[in-house]
Amino acid sequence: MIHLYTGNGKGKTTSAFGLAMRASGQGLRVCIFQFLKPKSLLCGEQVIIRKIKGIDIVAFKQSHPMFEDVSMQELKKIVEKDFIRTEKIIHEKRYDMIVLDEIINAVDQGFVDKKRFLDFLRSIPEGIELVLTGRGDISAIEQYADYITVMVEKKHPFRKNIPARKGIEY
Amino acid sequence: MIHLYTGNGKGKTTSAFGLAMRASGQGLRVCIFQFLKPKSLLCGEQVIIRKIKGIDIVAFKQSHPMFEDVSMQELKKIVEKDFIRTEKIIHEKRYDMIVLDEIINAVDQGFVDKKRFLDFLRSIPEGIELVLTGRGDISAIEQYADYITVMVEKKHPFRKNIPARKGIEY
Repeated sequence: MIHLYTGNGKGKTTSAFGLAMRASGQGLRVCIFQFLKPKSLLCGEQVIIRKIKGIDIVAFKQSHPMFEDVSMQELKKIVEKDFIRTEKIIHEKRYDMIVLDEIINAVDQGFVDKKRFLDFLRSIPEGIELVLTGRGDISAIEQYADYITVMVEKKHPFRKNIPARKGIEY
Repeated sequence: MIHLYTGNGKGKTTSAFGLAMRASGQGLRVCIFQFLKPKSLLCGEQVIIRKIKGIDIVAFKQSHPMFEDVSMQELKKIVEKDFIRTEKIIHEKRYDMIVLDEIINAVDQGFVDKKRFLDFLRSIPEGIELVLTGRGDISAIEQYADYITVMVEKKHPFRKNIPARKGIEY
């Protein structure tokens, strides 16, 4: 089945990581792929997940023009190549659950071709749980999802100009 | 700060567990207390979290009249006692982050006195991250929260009468 965590609220990536943990605890083989994470930012959840047997994680070494010196065009090439890698792994059926963290941003921002992504969603083998997270336009995607949760931000300290905090936002 | 994950959508408990993992990965000391989980149900995330050094978990041996043979009155006594235990531990400041999973349900269903709960929220020591999850009326609670994410269900296989699945819903 296909799961989608989207919306502007906090909790999309953490939900996906929590779900990966739940699945692994029940014996499912899980792999997490992370898209568009700035190279320079080490997130706390990565530290812990790497220690969990039964969950693999691939944080793609992608930069982002917002954070690092890379052009949009260079980044698009890198992301496309990484996406092809995830497609291949999904079809090898070595995992029961695959998380594509921030993939919705990657599609929304044009780093992964939308038509290609929709073809990919239609091709997911039976029995695989595919978990998608990220912000962006989901109007073409939602028909393929079995679960959709929209995280709606009702309150966030960002609004009071409190910057991202270690252990909380990353 | 106080974090609240609420709403009818999937991802409240998994977000809190994912956040606990993120915090622990950045060196915060974390404790998770689970309320109102049926005794007979072992959730996958509990299996994994118990193996993570730096995160403690207390799944209170509470039953629920929906699942097990216990009266509402007996359950209220048990939940109140357990809640007092969490209050005590928070004020001992042994942890940087405390998760009270499903506490909103416990307050909403009257197992924890609402006035007592609001007094508790006002008394949280500076520097502690308190993470609350659950469904229910949050109108009196929201003023104390710094982060509020409402998980809105847009699609769920429950609606197609597909029952809860191991590794996904528990």
